[in-house]
Amino acid sequence: MPELRKDPIVGRWVIIASERARRPIDFQVDRDPPRAGMCPFCPGQEDKTPHEVLAYRPPDGPSSRRDTPGWSLRVIPNKFPALMIEGDLDRAGEGVYDRMNGVGAHEVLVETPDHTRNFSTLSEPEIEGVLSAYRDRIVDLKRDMRFKYVMIFKNHGAAAGASLEHTHSQLIALPVVPKNVTEEMSGALDYYKYKERCVFCDIVRQELRERSRLVYENADFVVIEPYAPKFPFETWVLPRRHRSAYEDASREEFATLANAMRVALRKLHLALDNPPYNFILHTSPFDQRENPHYHWHIEIMPTLGKVAGFEWGSGFYINPTPPEEAARFLREIAE
Amino acid sequence: MPELRKDPIVGRWVIIASERARRPIDFQVDRDPPRAGMCPFCPGQEDKTPHEVLAYRPPDGPSSRRDTPGWSLRVIPNKFPALMIEGDLDRAGEGVYDRMNGVGAHEVLVETPDHTRNFSTLSEPEIEGVLSAYRDRIVDLKRDMRFKYVMIFKNHGAAAGASLEHTHSQLIALPVVPKNVTEEMSGALDYYKYKERCVFCDIVRQELRERSRLVYENADFVVIEPYAPKFPFETWVLPRRHRSAYEDASREEFATLANAMRVALRKLHLALDNPPYNFILHTSPFDQRENPHYHWHIEIMPTLGKVAGFEWGSGFYINPTPPEEAARFLREIAE
Repeated sequence: MPELRKDPIVGRWVIIASERARRPIDFQVDRDPPRAGMCPFCPGQEDKTPHEVLAYRPPDGPSSRRDTPGWSLRVIPNKFPALMIEGDLDRAGEGVYDRMNGVGAHEVLVETPDHTRNFSTLSEPEIEGVLSAYRDRIVDLKRDMRFKYVMIFKNHGAAAGASLEHTHSQLIALPVVPKNVTEEMSGALDYYKYKERCVFCDIVRQELRERSRLVYENADFVVIEPYAPKFPFETWVLPRRHRSAYEDASREEFATLANAMRVALRKLHLALDNPPYNFILHTSPFDQRENPHYHWHIEIMPTLGKVAGFEWGSGFYINPTPPEEAARFLREIAE
Repeated sequence: MPELRKDPIVGRWVIIASERARRPIDFQVDRDPPRAGMCPFCPGQEDKTPHEVLAYRPPDGPSSRRDTPGWSLRVIPNKFPALMIEGDLDRAGEGVYDRMNGVGAHEVLVETPDHTRNFSTLSEPEIEGVLSAYRDRIVDLKRDMRFKYVMIFKNHGAAAGASLEHTHSQLIALPVVPKNVTEEMSGALDYYKYKERCVFCDIVRQELRERSRLVYENADFVVIEPYAPKFPFETWVLPRRHRSAYEDASREEFATLANAMRVALRKLHLALDNPPYNFILHTSPFDQRENPHYHWHIEIMPTLGKVAGFEWGSGFYINPTPPEEAARFLREIAE
């Protein structure tokens, strides 16, 4: 059973995933990823993965049986999960330290049956399917009272931490609200208490007025380079309308979000020659209802540099590309 | 002039180092580092760097002139600094955002004239020289009233962000206390308020008693794998005696710290086959006097895996190597 351990100074939780335990020698091996057809995420390889928890199958498709080909999107438990779905939390102390069992869900969302495509070349209806699957899994996992948050993210490219090429997203449901989420929520609440406005709504308004950091906009979403980006070409996708929880977005908004995500990722793909990147869904914890201070959004971070000692020590980031320049460059890219 | 910009939600400062501005194409070039003799940190190349701010020259050495060979350690301003030493802070708002001028010091400490050596093969007197230079620079920079903190760190290996091979450390003096330092200080203060004991002193006591995460100890220092490490083989070096500021360590402690650092880095070097790593000095901000809750120390982080979407989004870390296993492995390595 993996273990959650808490740093006694800053309160950061760490997952000690001992089922994946690695001795020093294991860190030196870079295995080649499996090819199309042999890949466990490809159609026909469904027996190489745990049983699917969700799949979208076109009604007119060749098959509708669980764990067989014919799906357009498939969600499966991670075969090497960082957390285990079964068990109780069993919080306990060990002297000055705190620990609990590593209970949680860790799932993989295979975004397309086609091994050779990537997120930025999916069609908007396909991307909308992926975004709807995120919502469906949040709604389902919210029912498990042990969980307080679900983190949804995508790693694209080996340098961004993707271990398999076949395009996929991941979700991890957690028994504690992660530190970064708590910080973002409380920062947004502090701003709200002082200004009586949502900080994200203020950002959307200012970026639409100034336009120097605006990359793209459609009816429901804006794509911007944030004012204080940690990394070159960091890109945020924000809904114009204030809403705290991703799963409460309307059906129409999933279509326009698919458009905004496709344009943003396509521009980054073309501008930076298929860069490795991470994107992360930022949404409210399960125990927070719709509130006036927090505003869900998606942050995309291309992996162009190295995180080094200064960043680790300070939490400061040194960014050589002003967001105004990155935005101008991305605006000029025809996708 | 570089600019400091603040994220309006979480309050993180970012350095927009536009003097180092890079267009997309620049991220795709990996240049070969210069070789011994051609390297700007080698003796005889002193004219390739800005004027030295500190150098140690053996009294019986061949030369004692500034910016000429004969030094055993040399501190120079970074040729491509993230922050500029001249100027006023000029704090200002831009709508919802906050900025100030990128004023600070950014220096490089060349640890030895020998291009081919690395920190873990330096002798203990040589390492003691490096550690004393850290103190000398802190004491000097503390006099500049614009600065609130000096971050001292080392990047070893390209994957850990080192752009030149010749072994060196860096320091960045900052006009604001970085977020990570504030968090560590206030976490330690919370613990102190509740327990009336220093959390780091409690950690040292527990690790010396349990010994499962202890790697090495000498008269003044303990080397441990922390209970909740972010990364495999993360290693901390802590003074046994409570003291808040690094620069207040006694002369004897610099000798025993040199011993602890050499042993820790040598064991990591041998265990992990010269891994890339960062180490970071954690010490009190300039405006904090000696206090009962904060305890300076050094954190060493080998760069063995990738930081991916989950870590970026949550601030959680997934670590496949329990610290008890890493410690057992390191204890058994003969350095």
